[in-house]
Amino acid sequence: MPPYIDKTTDPVKFETWRPQIELAQKRLKDSLVADFVVPQSDLPGDSVLDVSTFPAKVMSPAELKITETDASTLVLEMGSGKLSAKTVLDAFMKRATIAHQLLNCATEFLADEAYERAKLLDEYVQTYGKPIGPLHGLPMSIKEHVSIKNRVTNAGFVALLNNVTPEDATTVSILRSLGAIPFVRTNEPQSLMHQDSCNYITGVTLNGFNRKLSPSGSSGGEGALIGFKGSVMGVGTDIGGSIRSPAAFNGCYGLRPTAGRVSSRGCISAGGGQESVKSSIGPLAQHLSDIELFMSSYVGAKPWLQDATLYRIPWKKVDVDKQLTVGIMRSDGVVKPHPPILRGLEFVEKKLIEAGVKVVEWEPYKCDELWEIVSSMYFADGCAAQNKLLGASGEPIHPLTAMAFSFGKGELTVSENQELNYRRDEFRNKYQQLMIERGVDVILCPAYVGVAAELGTTSYWGYCSHWNLLDQPGLVFPTGLYQDPVVDKVDPRTEYWNLTDEKESQKYVPNVFKGAPIALQLVSQRYEDEFLLAAGKIITECLR
Amino acid sequence: MPPYIDKTTDPVKFETWRPQIELAQKRLKDSLVADFVVPQSDLPGDSVLDVSTFPAKVMSPAELKITETDASTLVLEMGSGKLSAKTVLDAFMKRATIAHQLLNCATEFLADEAYERAKLLDEYVQTYGKPIGPLHGLPMSIKEHVSIKNRVTNAGFVALLNNVTPEDATTVSILRSLGAIPFVRTNEPQSLMHQDSCNYITGVTLNGFNRKLSPSGSSGGEGALIGFKGSVMGVGTDIGGSIRSPAAFNGCYGLRPTAGRVSSRGCISAGGGQESVKSSIGPLAQHLSDIELFMSSYVGAKPWLQDATLYRIPWKKVDVDKQLTVGIMRSDGVVKPHPPILRGLEFVEKKLIEAGVKVVEWEPYKCDELWEIVSSMYFADGCAAQNKLLGASGEPIHPLTAMAFSFGKGELTVSENQELNYRRDEFRNKYQQLMIERGVDVILCPAYVGVAAELGTTSYWGYCSHWNLLDQPGLVFPTGLYQDPVVDKVDPRTEYWNLTDEKESQKYVPNVFKGAPIALQLVSQRYEDEFLLAAGKIITECLR
Repeated sequence: MPPYIDKTTDPVKFETWRPQIELAQKRLKDSLVADFVVPQSDLPGDSVLDVSTFPAKVMSPAELKITETDASTLVLEMGSGKLSAKTVLDAFMKRATIAHQLLNCATEFLADEAYERAKLLDEYVQTYGKPIGPLHGLPMSIKEHVSIKNRVTNAGFVALLNNVTPEDATTVSILRSLGAIPFVRTNEPQSLMHQDSCNYITGVTLNGFNRKLSPSGSSGGEGALIGFKGSVMGVGTDIGGSIRSPAAFNGCYGLRPTAGRVSSRGCISAGGGQESVKSSIGPLAQHLSDIELFMSSYVGAKPWLQDATLYRIPWKKVDVDKQLTVGIMRSDGVVKPHPPILRGLEFVEKKLIEAGVKVVEWEPYKCDELWEIVSSMYFADGCAAQNKLLGASGEPIHPLTAMAFSFGKGELTVSENQELNYRRDEFRNKYQQLMIERGVDVILCPAYVGVAAELGTTSYWGYCSHWNLLDQPGLVFPTGLYQDPVVDKVDPRTEYWNLTDEKESQKYVPNVFKGAPIALQLVSQRYEDEFLLAAGKIITECLR
Repeated sequence: MPPYIDKTTDPVKFETWRPQIELAQKRLKDSLVADFVVPQSDLPGDSVLDVSTFPAKVMSPAELKITETDASTLVLEMGSGKLSAKTVLDAFMKRATIAHQLLNCATEFLADEAYERAKLLDEYVQTYGKPIGPLHGLPMSIKEHVSIKNRVTNAGFVALLNNVTPEDATTVSILRSLGAIPFVRTNEPQSLMHQDSCNYITGVTLNGFNRKLSPSGSSGGEGALIGFKGSVMGVGTDIGGSIRSPAAFNGCYGLRPTAGRVSSRGCISAGGGQESVKSSIGPLAQHLSDIELFMSSYVGAKPWLQDATLYRIPWKKVDVDKQLTVGIMRSDGVVKPHPPILRGLEFVEKKLIEAGVKVVEWEPYKCDELWEIVSSMYFADGCAAQNKLLGASGEPIHPLTAMAFSFGKGELTVSENQELNYRRDEFRNKYQQLMIERGVDVILCPAYVGVAAELGTTSYWGYCSHWNLLDQPGLVFPTGLYQDPVVDKVDPRTEYWNLTDEKESQKYVPNVFKGAPIALQLVSQRYEDEFLLAAGKIITECLR
């Protein structure tokens, strides 16, 4: 734990919040659909780390098939009446329930309202012979701090356990209007500012590929759930990697769109009005095509009419062919990635070259400065907003909260903050110029220093947060490879670039990360979300 | 002068800057084209207030015709070889020189490079039989703080008199690439933060319709020059009305686009990185069609490839018909406009109704809060950036600088600034929602409390700055009416809404404002710049 003086913890006050915490836990427990709960005795024991194949033991082939089908297909089948929304909801509700039993990834199931909505949607198809919208009947998981109407939204803060949000977040409202059915809310860390998912309300979320590992965060509940195929598509948020890192740790797809294309209105957090580095909201999904489905449907609904802070940029159709030039960034020059990540990069590079895609080296550019700037922006108010919320309940400060709060330079003056904004914009211009000069269309890079982290140990955010600072959209995709202790041996380094590099390097113990998916990140120029997805499609096709 | 303690003034230090000031003044004087300078004895005396008709006495009919023709036509004629770029440049250089002699609106003429470029462009047409770009040969005026390569750019600060900018501002570079010829740089106030144009380098700029009046600011040199028809189109910048207010005072058109559509990169000012309320850069012009020409040409050049902070929003073709609903805001509820402005609103209303355009009342919404927020954002750093630059030369603080610096709440903490950002976004949403709910497509309102202000007396920025806070684009257009002391009598008010209202009301003395153009402002939703111009076209056609 870094040298952090915890001024907000108040054990006596915290004790007065115990009933609300227990109420929230009871609400979660009661929200599970009893029929889908697997008896404790049938569940794998704690010693079983990889639980990703467990659903095959307790679900029917039909249920397994539904939960592993892409959303685009499910929507088509539900919209034509071939499959009922009820049937699809049953399958996901069951698999999500199991996911939660094994990984503690949910904060609340929304069964009653979801089944009611599924019934209405099925009746709609029966009556009109067509779907209600492009996401007709699709069960979707939603990160907890994205408000759901008339429910408590706590953002991982105990003090918000009485915070009933009277309206759906704008994005939830839009997804509903497109036909989606929010069916489960997912876990996140205390303060939302960990790449891990643990708080004093719901507890710790685990990684389904290896339960000693973190699912990352802050959209870690989403990552764990979608990685387990308990949801086909969900909504996360990302200010320093919080969509991309969980997608990577759990082997699914995740897009952090350019900030301002998807609405964060109605997302609860400390620190509203911090806009030096903006949070972005976007999809995590089992299938890449569904990321496109989400974005095209969502932007097609003109979300800017419901949120004036969004850009009025319609979703473009973009075709990308193999004439693409991919720049590979093998490290950010600050922290060297672990061996399995480097293997992943080499694997993708080889596949791209075989497929005729041009690949060049991407020399990292001053990433230490990017980290210096962005880490100072997150808590430019000296964590005043966070400390206020933590102090209101007196809850203990989680070590990862303390670590995040120690980022940067503490409280800044407005002048200092403005100076950082200015430097940020210079970097945004420089990176754009570099991509143009180097003829690089997309940058392929790690999403994290390793395949995952042990629970409670994530610390270096750089591989994602660089792009938050630059506001360049990032897509995480699984390579199809998994960490293998035999193949991915320790890098026999004797010299390190700096203390962080040394610390991160020493976290790599091959046996610890066994079975973790190897995922990578693809980054485009700012606002080129459409191009990014099209390039991602080309690249993932090369991997098949 | 408000209770402002001037800590930066240092008469002894300032004296050491005298040679640089004299050098700048000599540079300006030397930059005038001698052939076009009217002998002092032929100029109207200081007692002649309205000098707008003077050019007819010293310019040929051909020259007058060119300088009163719209840019779109001039560009077509130069691109086809019907008119040479040299001839057009001569005409504007002459009229601009006269404007400067009468109004002190320029900071530097760029004759040598402009004539060199005109020659090249004429040769290009002769060789290739086509124009080089959509602004082929167009002489353009540029506000001084928009950098010109290898020239001093001072932003109205004495301490920047050695600040040679090595590159053109991005917008200048793009305009050049489109064929435009920057031929004169125009005056602005000390610190850029007055709605007036006076500094300790170039002095005071006057209004050509009435030389006792201010041309407004901060793009007051542009306003005065274009109002005098010494330039057909120019570039201004606007963070609180600095394009729109000068356009209004000088009876021309001015557009403050949505921030982020035109590049401010390479504009010199104190306070880079202040982004709670963003400065916007845009055109002032004699003709509305040229505002459209500027925007469509400029955005068509994909300026975002040269400035990563810009949105990648192509210029849309928008057709608007008379089915438009115009909301008339007769006051902001804080300061009641002067009688000629109210007459202008009634005049336009009548014309619109006659033409079949739907007109409704726009009830102002919490404009006092808009002013409270925006005025606190401008100098959230406690004027640290400005004071640093002022202190570096020790120059005297102009009373209007002091007034601006006294706006708001002084230095804010980052938390306080973030809280204001949050409130700003709530207002942006509220205003958008109001426009949708009220069915109002565009809001017609004043651009200033009066037709103009006496020199050195502008104080209330609200009618423009409200829209800066909301980032809703604003178009100023002349109604074709002029203040008339006989018609526009004093409003016999006995009660005032507040002290500001009383103060502003008492500034209205009918004889003082004689002959000032009556101009108004049209405002659309954020990002709807194209729609705004199309609506402006409909409305100005109704006025004919």
